[in-house]
Amino acid sequence: MVLSGIWKRPENSKDPPPDLRISHAKELEPDAVQDLCASVGWSRREPALVSKALNNSVAVVSVWDKDVMVGFARATGDMVFNATIWDVVVRPTYQRCGVGLLVMRELLIELDSFDIPLVTLYADPGTDGFYKRFGFLTDPSGVRGMFREKL
Amino acid sequence: MVLSGIWKRPENSKDPPPDLRISHAKELEPDAVQDLCASVGWSRREPALVSKALNNSVAVVSVWDKDVMVGFARATGDMVFNATIWDVVVRPTYQRCGVGLLVMRELLIELDSFDIPLVTLYADPGTDGFYKRFGFLTDPSGVRGMFREKL
Repeated sequence: MVLSGIWKRPENSKDPPPDLRISHAKELEPDAVQDLCASVGWSRREPALVSKALNNSVAVVSVWDKDVMVGFARATGDMVFNATIWDVVVRPTYQRCGVGLLVMRELLIELDSFDIPLVTLYADPGTDGFYKRFGFLTDPSGVRGMFREKL
Repeated sequence: MVLSGIWKRPENSKDPPPDLRISHAKELEPDAVQDLCASVGWSRREPALVSKALNNSVAVVSVWDKDVMVGFARATGDMVFNATIWDVVVRPTYQRCGVGLLVMRELLIELDSFDIPLVTLYADPGTDGFYKRFGFLTDPSGVRGMFREKL
């Protein structure tokens, strides 16, 4: 695992969390990712597909408390003009203490290092205020997000 | 150029267009892409960046009338769980005769061939009706598109 830094408690944190490790590695154990996703109720996928999706992402950030993944986010994109953020997740017992801010900050630092001018995401209801803290705007110029799910 | 088929005039077309060629090749001349984008007022980019973005896309569709590109679209993604469509463009003199439908249909066929369950896009104002024809829903479950542009 590649570690890029040690987490520091943000000034506005309500609860002092433990020291956390930050990783920008794509090579993560699928089980560790799935365990985190399951903690917030997301369905499990085939491990090989998880690994392939991570490898095909342009940036992946995970946050660890010892050997437990407590935060995660990734982005897809073309490495030039745009990137799209997916799967921003924080383990419930680690929520409301700055882990989400940490994950987003680290992901945006990595995307900005590629000079990608446009970063997009799809915000679940009630989460847009969180993303606005990073400069994201909802439906700019009337642009609307659209989804097509294959049954 | 890899050609996947010959375009046929859709039954609901208002104007009979000429025979068009369809390509799913990523290796396109940047000038041809830029010329098409400029025809609808999009700004030009560095050719090397255009080539890199095309190469890093998971699917690219272009439609040609002889040696003139008249339609284009591409998608980014992780090749597993999701794809995002970008840059759907039809040359003005070829609009309203089925070229946009053709481009989208070809792009979705390619994405579906990878078994990607979720395809997303950001629709400019007034274009959501077009995308609904392909099964796209606007803001499903209250999910909202958000953009962060780097200045």
